[in-house]
Amino acid sequence: MTDAATNMRLKLPLICIILEVILIILFGALVQYDHGTDARKWHEHLKNHSDYENDFYFRYPSFQDVHVMIFIGFGFLMTFLQRYGFSSVGFNFLIAAFALQWATLMQGFFHGMHGGKIHIGVESMINADFCTGSVLISFGAVLGKTSPVQLLVMALFEVTLFAVNEFILLSALGAKDAGGSMTIHTFGAYFGLVVTRVLYRPNLDKSKHRNSSVYHSDLFAMIGTIYLWMFWPSFNSAVTAHGDDQHRTAMNTYYSLAACTLSTYAMSALTAHDGKLDMVHIQNAALAGGVAAGTAGEMMLTPFGSMIVGFLAGIISVLGFKYLSPILEEKLKIQDTCGVHNLHGMPGILGAIVGAVTAAIATTDVYGDGMADVFPDVASGEVEASFQGVRQAISLAVTLGIALLGGLIVGFILKLPIFGAPPDTICFEDSIYWEVPGDEEAHEDQLTTVVRTEEAEKLNS
Amino acid sequence: MTDAATNMRLKLPLICIILEVILIILFGALVQYDHGTDARKWHEHLKNHSDYENDFYFRYPSFQDVHVMIFIGFGFLMTFLQRYGFSSVGFNFLIAAFALQWATLMQGFFHGMHGGKIHIGVESMINADFCTGSVLISFGAVLGKTSPVQLLVMALFEVTLFAVNEFILLSALGAKDAGGSMTIHTFGAYFGLVVTRVLYRPNLDKSKHRNSSVYHSDLFAMIGTIYLWMFWPSFNSAVTAHGDDQHRTAMNTYYSLAACTLSTYAMSALTAHDGKLDMVHIQNAALAGGVAAGTAGEMMLTPFGSMIVGFLAGIISVLGFKYLSPILEEKLKIQDTCGVHNLHGMPGILGAIVGAVTAAIATTDVYGDGMADVFPDVASGEVEASFQGVRQAISLAVTLGIALLGGLIVGFILKLPIFGAPPDTICFEDSIYWEVPGDEEAHEDQLTTVVRTEEAEKLNS
Amino acid sequence: MTDAATNMRLKLPLICIILEVILIILFGALVQYDHGTDARKWHEHLKNHSDYENDFYFRYPSFQDVHVMIFIGFGFLMTFLQRYGFSSVGFNFLIAAFALQWATLMQGFFHGMHGGKIHIGVESMINADFCTGSVLISFGAVLGKTSPVQLLVMALFEVTLFAVNEFILLSALGAKDAGGSMTIHTFGAYFGLVVTRVLYRPNLDKSKHRNSSVYHSDLFAMIGTIYLWMFWPSFNSAVTAHGDDQHRTAMNTYYSLAACTLSTYAMSALTAHDGKLDMVHIQNAALAGGVAAGTAGEMMLTPFGSMIVGFLAGIISVLGFKYLSPILEEKLKIQDTCGVHNLHGMPGILGAIVGAVTAAIATTDVYGDGMADVFPDVASGEVEASFQGVRQAISLAVTLGIALLGGLIVGFILKLPIFGAPPDTICFEDSIYWEVPGDEEAHEDQLTTVVRTEEAEKLNS
Repeated sequence: MTDAATNMRLKLPLICIILEVILIILFGALVQYDHGTDARKWHEHLKNHSDYENDFYFRYPSFQDVHVMIFIGFGFLMTFLQRYGFSSVGFNFLIAAFALQWATLMQGFFHGMHGGKIHIGVESMINADFCTGSVLISFGAVLGKTSPVQLLVMALFEVTLFAVNEFILLSALGAKDAGGSMTIHTFGAYFGLVVTRVLYRPNLDKSKHRNSSVYHSDLFAMIGTIYLWMFWPSFNSAVTAHGDDQHRTAMNTYYSLAACTLSTYAMSALTAHDGKLDMVHIQNAALAGGVAAGTAGEMMLTPFGSMIVGFLAGIISVLGFKYLSPILEEKLKIQDTCGVHNLHGMPGILGAIVGAVTAAIATTDVYGDGMADVFPDVASGEVEASFQGVRQAISLAVTLGIALLGGLIVGFILKLPIFGAPPDTICFEDSIYWEVPGDEEAHEDQLTTVVRTEEAEKLNS
Repeated sequence: MTDAATNMRLKLPLICIILEVILIILFGALVQYDHGTDARKWHEHLKNHSDYENDFYFRYPSFQDVHVMIFIGFGFLMTFLQRYGFSSVGFNFLIAAFALQWATLMQGFFHGMHGGKIHIGVESMINADFCTGSVLISFGAVLGKTSPVQLLVMALFEVTLFAVNEFILLSALGAKDAGGSMTIHTFGAYFGLVVTRVLYRPNLDKSKHRNSSVYHSDLFAMIGTIYLWMFWPSFNSAVTAHGDDQHRTAMNTYYSLAACTLSTYAMSALTAHDGKLDMVHIQNAALAGGVAAGTAGEMMLTPFGSMIVGFLAGIISVLGFKYLSPILEEKLKIQDTCGVHNLHGMPGILGAIVGAVTAAIATTDVYGDGMADVFPDVASGEVEASFQGVRQAISLAVTLGIALLGGLIVGFILKLPIFGAPPDTICFEDSIYWEVPGDEEAHEDQLTTVVRTEEAEKLNS
Repeated sequence: MTDAATNMRLKLPLICIILEVILIILFGALVQYDHGTDARKWHEHLKNHSDYENDFYFRYPSFQDVHVMIFIGFGFLMTFLQRYGFSSVGFNFLIAAFALQWATLMQGFFHGMHGGKIHIGVESMINADFCTGSVLISFGAVLGKTSPVQLLVMALFEVTLFAVNEFILLSALGAKDAGGSMTIHTFGAYFGLVVTRVLYRPNLDKSKHRNSSVYHSDLFAMIGTIYLWMFWPSFNSAVTAHGDDQHRTAMNTYYSLAACTLSTYAMSALTAHDGKLDMVHIQNAALAGGVAAGTAGEMMLTPFGSMIVGFLAGIISVLGFKYLSPILEEKLKIQDTCGVHNLHGMPGILGAIVGAVTAAIATTDVYGDGMADVFPDVASGEVEASFQGVRQAISLAVTLGIALLGGLIVGFILKLPIFGAPPDTICFEDSIYWEVPGDEEAHEDQLTTVVRTEEAEKLNS
């Protein structure tokens, strides 16, 4: 039932092997252990230090939590579709494994070079996972409508643009965005939304019957949701400064998420005509509190402030799913499979705004010597806190600009008819790219029928 | 098919929003960062200390393990019911997100006040999750028979009473209970059992066909079981003193659980007429070793002692499921959906007794200077070890008293006919409170029939 | 439908209780807290040290990741079979809980004795989990064809032989194998393969229809795969030296796995006639990069070297599944249910070879003072690096020898007709040892028919 165009037998091996060989060559040429991972350098360092000062012990537990979010969290969150579980987890796995390697190089190129070499350790691993997260958000927008080859091509370009944007924000503009409300969520969401807009399929309703969940697929998706929710405090705090910064960021995120969960349940019941909770809201909107605390989480936002942010994020997100997504699809032709605009787009913008405001009102009275960790340029007197707020706001605008423009270009690249995209009739369907177990034979027959019908239609037209 | 009484459209949003707004106001008025999360305070502290001394690095990995137990462990353990997976994970999620916020305030009020303010950090987050665990245990007793509004009301009162009981035990009586055999498990179980007794439904057998598992729901439940089992060492050690105490508690719990698993499998096969293992036992009784090591785990129980405790806990728990639960249901009218009496009730009491005995025989010879961490009042000479044992025993009695009385009162509150409890015919059923996916239409039709039949019966009677 | 031979009512309780009682007695006689878990000893130590130097904080997060791999990773990886999920997770749980206790004793006996006592702490817990992992690999080879009693007997002997082999390698031969390419993977795989060879069932095709997956069972298996993949960096680094060693090992493994994932997807599509990805490859071969980095991961392999190793491991593993496994089954009569030869066997050997080569080319220029951590005998001048390479190669040969011989003997022990092995017609089937939920009644009927048919055949023959 697979026709030639979507047959991956040569396309997928070719791109995987070419990409991996390039990665290996570039790693061989450019990448070195940093002073915490290199045997000689660390042991020189040890003369005046102790092993417990190795960054590994400050960040590795957070790294592993982030890793779980990337591979289990994103992967299983997208298994909600009834016939797309293999692809959701499996393509998530593939593109994440590629993206984290490529991100190591791109991010290293922009801000990890030492004497012509990229130095890597646990912090670069976290940053690579973060960048990967952004790609997976975009994957959510195009879920079910793209081939693995398209996804790898998208990842290749998106990682590169992510690194450019991140460099402009954090290095050139001096913005703060530890949990990535802007760099990860806003960027990934709007990039993906533009890509899916360019890839618009007017006849996608031919696969409509598969673009929905079944009972157990919703439970699998909840595994993803809950892991994302639990480990978001680790995500936002993973690369903040040691000590109070990591501690505070984790705690702020924890309370933001808790408050968001209550507003999500409230809005889900309130907007349903019969008061029944909608799994789509619970699976997604309850996470918006983590997104919205991504920038300000490391600041002295207070648990009180975090809860307000989370509370609002949940409300915005459910309203987006209920009222905005249908409009985006009908009027703007944006087919956003997972609703990333509601989970990552709007809450990301909210997070950026909260970050700008929180930065603008920072005072030495509140931060004490900790100002140097959170706002080094304010602490050094280089800029006023209010100007730090302006920087943050500009960063949001830059992120949106790069995401929209980048998504446009990459979208058109992905439209080239060489990447094996599925036909409109076989979207949201594993069996086009996967061997599915035998009990699905009946189902395969149906598909064959669909394909044949489509072919017949083509012949007739 | 939802009749007005169980329609959550206004009830659920109302309670969620009111509770969250109250929480936000109280957090704004009362809650502050502690010295490990506050930028200014920690950086003052840093003048004589180092970042790796921040409590975050001692406890955050344990916190995240506990967090997984609360949200994945408890949530998925309860998905064993064939048609209640959304509610098991989803209501678990909702009431936990509420309870942890409310617990921060209640526990802070009783033992975290500094100059009129509640100071919070990773330790308070763990304690809040612990208190939440107790509520989720009670949820297990009433699973399938309560509306989300009832559950939130229950959580509101139970968290409050938990904090009172915890204060009496740990502060007033000077008992030790790091892993909560008494404060969490015994309290949560007996509170929940009394609540379910008060909410007794004589006609629950009308939903009997849904009060059982299917093949895949049992596998989902095993996700919960295994996570609880694996992370229980982190649970029991999460708030013990730094150093040997955390280390020893984790190790004792590890061996207690391993021994418990073997006795559970033994008893499950032995008590089945055909020698076949029963998933209910494996999913639950294998965890009793963690419960039973909750008090004595931090003491010098030795791995040998821990294994004996775990071994006994597994036996008691399986026997409870097999022989005691049916009696409780028939004679005492206690409809304990998850069998929390067998997993948390009896093993909790066992743990309390083991703790009392282990405390009573503590000697300086064994504990050395470590006595000050485990039994500060014994180390200071304020009390004899034997009296510490008495304190522990009294604590068990107090816990049972408050749980039983509290459950009684709260049970009657929950009986008020305003919270949207499901009718007897639609218990253990997601579709009363959730949109369930389309493939369940046939099933919904059946339900509609059931409801209509019931309505017809009402009219006829 | 269970006939007397496979009835576990007495056999399973008997062996569980006898084993656990022996364990408890031996723990009571031989096991003591080490200086990091003992209250008195640690507090004596504290006079010149600090709590953050307790090994707990260096290793416990890694331990918990390893623990997840053992219980969730291995357990769920094996749930791919359509009717064997209870047994996969449940027997995995049982034999792991036993093996970790027995391993504590066996490993302690060989290299943890202090004045006649075995001293235990977090490092011994990790090592016990490691040894357990080896048993679970062997379990994968015999999956579906063995009773729980057989599995416990196998674990009893295999743990013992594992400890002997480990002692010879690490203590007698002075080899390095932190992540266990040899001690865990090669040993476990070839031991299991010989066992399954001895237990060869010529009529296993009578259960062929159950020796395959269904849609949701493959998704459950992916939970196992992803957890193994994510936490493998923790596995390989869990017992390496503090500081750069743990840090570097984790990072090397991370890149090895990422590269392996790309080559796995490439080879899976390439070797399929229609270019469709095969879940078996994704679930297994993508992990081979972790196995292959098990020995050299702690060395200065570089990320570049790690990626080459992972890339090759993925290729070898998929080719093994595709072309070698059928040959092993047909020609050598090795019925390897999970394909452990492809995931653990060949990649383990690859890892051993990579380790030998990497050791042989180690120089002080590269390792600096870190040489003492990685190759203490080279650092002390006792041996040349090239000879360390020879030691590593000899270790591989020793491991293969002990695994093959041990598997042979244990295989014949397991063949004794007293352990309740399932008949050929009811392999890969939960209902022979488990109560399965009611919706499976139809299925049970089929089984009954099968059994009756078989009995009829016996009568006729």
